[in-house]
Amino acid sequence: MLAKVTTPSPPVPSTPTAAADRAHVFHSWSAQAQISPAEITRARGSHFWTADGTRYLDFSSQLVNVNIGYQHPRLVAAIQEQAEKLLTVSPAFANESRSEAARLIAELAPGDLDAVFFTNGGAEATENAMRMARLHTGRHKVLTTYRSYHGATAGAIAATGDPRRWGSEPSIPGIVHFWGPYLYRSAFHASTEAEECERALQHLRDTIMVEGPATIAAIMLETVVGTNGVLVPPDGYLEGVRRICDEHGIVFIADEVMAGFGRCGEWFAVDRWDVTPDLICFAKGVNSGYVPLGGVVISAAIAATFADRPYPGGLTYSGHPLACASAVASIGIFRDEGILEHVRGVEETVLRPGLEAIAERHPCVGEVRGVGFMYAVELVRSRETREPMVPFNASGAAAAPMNEFAAACRKGGLWPFVHFNRTHVVPPCTTTADEMRQGLEILDSALTVADAHVTD
Amino acid sequence: MLAKVTTPSPPVPSTPTAAADRAHVFHSWSAQAQISPAEITRARGSHFWTADGTRYLDFSSQLVNVNIGYQHPRLVAAIQEQAEKLLTVSPAFANESRSEAARLIAELAPGDLDAVFFTNGGAEATENAMRMARLHTGRHKVLTTYRSYHGATAGAIAATGDPRRWGSEPSIPGIVHFWGPYLYRSAFHASTEAEECERALQHLRDTIMVEGPATIAAIMLETVVGTNGVLVPPDGYLEGVRRICDEHGIVFIADEVMAGFGRCGEWFAVDRWDVTPDLICFAKGVNSGYVPLGGVVISAAIAATFADRPYPGGLTYSGHPLACASAVASIGIFRDEGILEHVRGVEETVLRPGLEAIAERHPCVGEVRGVGFMYAVELVRSRETREPMVPFNASGAAAAPMNEFAAACRKGGLWPFVHFNRTHVVPPCTTTADEMRQGLEILDSALTVADAHVTD
Repeated sequence: MLAKVTTPSPPVPSTPTAAADRAHVFHSWSAQAQISPAEITRARGSHFWTADGTRYLDFSSQLVNVNIGYQHPRLVAAIQEQAEKLLTVSPAFANESRSEAARLIAELAPGDLDAVFFTNGGAEATENAMRMARLHTGRHKVLTTYRSYHGATAGAIAATGDPRRWGSEPSIPGIVHFWGPYLYRSAFHASTEAEECERALQHLRDTIMVEGPATIAAIMLETVVGTNGVLVPPDGYLEGVRRICDEHGIVFIADEVMAGFGRCGEWFAVDRWDVTPDLICFAKGVNSGYVPLGGVVISAAIAATFADRPYPGGLTYSGHPLACASAVASIGIFRDEGILEHVRGVEETVLRPGLEAIAERHPCVGEVRGVGFMYAVELVRSRETREPMVPFNASGAAAAPMNEFAAACRKGGLWPFVHFNRTHVVPPCTTTADEMRQGLEILDSALTVADAHVTD
Repeated sequence: MLAKVTTPSPPVPSTPTAAADRAHVFHSWSAQAQISPAEITRARGSHFWTADGTRYLDFSSQLVNVNIGYQHPRLVAAIQEQAEKLLTVSPAFANESRSEAARLIAELAPGDLDAVFFTNGGAEATENAMRMARLHTGRHKVLTTYRSYHGATAGAIAATGDPRRWGSEPSIPGIVHFWGPYLYRSAFHASTEAEECERALQHLRDTIMVEGPATIAAIMLETVVGTNGVLVPPDGYLEGVRRICDEHGIVFIADEVMAGFGRCGEWFAVDRWDVTPDLICFAKGVNSGYVPLGGVVISAAIAATFADRPYPGGLTYSGHPLACASAVASIGIFRDEGILEHVRGVEETVLRPGLEAIAERHPCVGEVRGVGFMYAVELVRSRETREPMVPFNASGAAAAPMNEFAAACRKGGLWPFVHFNRTHVVPPCTTTADEMRQGLEILDSALTVADAHVTD
């Protein structure tokens, strides 16, 4: 996704790694001949270095996964120790690090979500959550929102509500997309958070009515919508969804692949609203992607469905000991270092006020919004009309203003997360107050480039 | 799948790990209340140990993935070294271990398969291979065989031709299952390998004719069918499939998740027949599952399709540095230690003759077949009728004879791979001649238990 910055004639690769990359590595979501990927040679804490020696402060956490920061010494040591001990064991066995990771995650999860099905990443998590919901309810449809991302395997991409789905259609049947709350661009012509919440819930109720409640297995939501805009649900929305699910026997799946494990200043983003879904999907922050890992936390009722009936899903590396050991260590570090408290503190004292000040100064900023270390700055041509700085799904020349902005950030030593007409502020959860201030200063300065494209 | 051995009342867990497992770990392909997973505490080379101190010689390689054996010191060291250096980098960047893994895999792959798209495992590999084939051809259907397994995400499970698919239907549209060669239970009433080959190809041609060649994007085959029976294609079959694909502009996908990287005594199983598919899916043996890793090796023509058109697929951990570093080290170890040659030597001198002798001695053995360190022993009630020892997809009491056989193996210190009416001999590729002999002796003895169920 970062590869959206396209170069018509990519430069000649400057290192053997870059040359082999261009010759042999097929990159995600990219036109292979139009990219010249920056080469990362080392990383530490909140920074990484490219092959030319440049250091970047990372406001992207790679793909919003390095929550604990790069190369955390204690987490590195835990991985090395488990590597020495036992690397791989099939899902059919019990193993210490697998049991301990499951026990810890169950302990952190709300309500009676006490069982964990481990996967390699987020896509397999949403795939398995949908499968569990279908078999548990005996129903087929799954409702998800437009402006969502749930992964790129056939089920996960069908559930996705953004353009990344288009290239994979038709995919699985039975997915119905509806509109979620997003006050700044309200699908419901609402003008307050409360009104947006109420109308979004009414829209969901109407959709369920016309689709048929008894045909709907699950509603799957990103608790806080990630790549599609850091859409924080208004207070009351998730509670409303929970109530609607209960009324109709629908499984509530919270996709917290991006929002969980510290990103929103909570173990799980749903904690912020005290809502207990039936299934929670996780990945990324659970171990900061140090080893591929994801999974689904499962309610007692859904687990019971598969007590005496075999669950028809699995994968060779489910509960991989190395991956699980890194999750165990990461959770311990989060607790010992008070990382959740750190996120909430720096959000309150630096990030939110800093972004609000930036919004004041720059006419190109339509809105800033977010929670924890998960913020979006939405850039517009006009605050009046709210016309996006670049069109929906823009690429190439149409995306130029955002590419210029991103280039200005990089020139200043900041690696930004840019998607459509937004930049997201999603740094490692260990980013210090000083680093956050430095990053915001660079962002502030780079936004001047975008201001030039404002039309009013 | 090993969990097929069901226990009506699982014993009380004997360790904290076992207790936490039963309380919190949701296992693949299992009825959660009916399992009591053995706890693996350590492993080395061809053996692993359970919590009660019992050592097992592993004839299963976990899920046929530990090709290099357990805890290979040089591979462990390489993982520890990369952990120290750099654990995770997003797919949008270039990175040394990613580039080197891609370069090495491209070097090993046949023909002009020179680009590698990395995934976390086999399911994502087949998902992406099908996506590439569909977009490359502009066609929709994918042909796969009955008695196949391609993974458990929505696309991969739809492609699967075994009962593991049933619980996930309906899944993606456009998958057509046909019958592959399997002389012992020929779908074509053939009596020789040559006849089976010819008739299986004719069946495939007929299927293409009635499905419409211009609607078919890909034919996806396990080069040697794995869990569904170690079905080795007769000489001429894969060449025939290649020709048919060429005639109709159909993409030939070889799923070598299980068969690749040493399992068949070759880097890729297709090498045995000198056939070059358009896409090869890999996982498991590429790094023995020490870190989750899979991928697709891509022909020049298909890579070219995505030169200036973005490839609409991806995942956060594509080309994960830790996983890629382990693949680089593993390939180096395979070369330096001559593991392919070792497999071919021990197959020739110990495994094949040993299994043939066993087949002679035991009336319950209907057939032994295989290649490299990938053999199946098919158990029957009667050699005459070839009635399987247990029915297709048997579980519970119906599977008792196979469960008794498996228990006898374990009692003898051997961990067998058992599926339906077969046991597969799929030990680590580093298993020594002596260990192989020991394992075959235990197998030999355990088969006596199955002989008791022979009816003629």
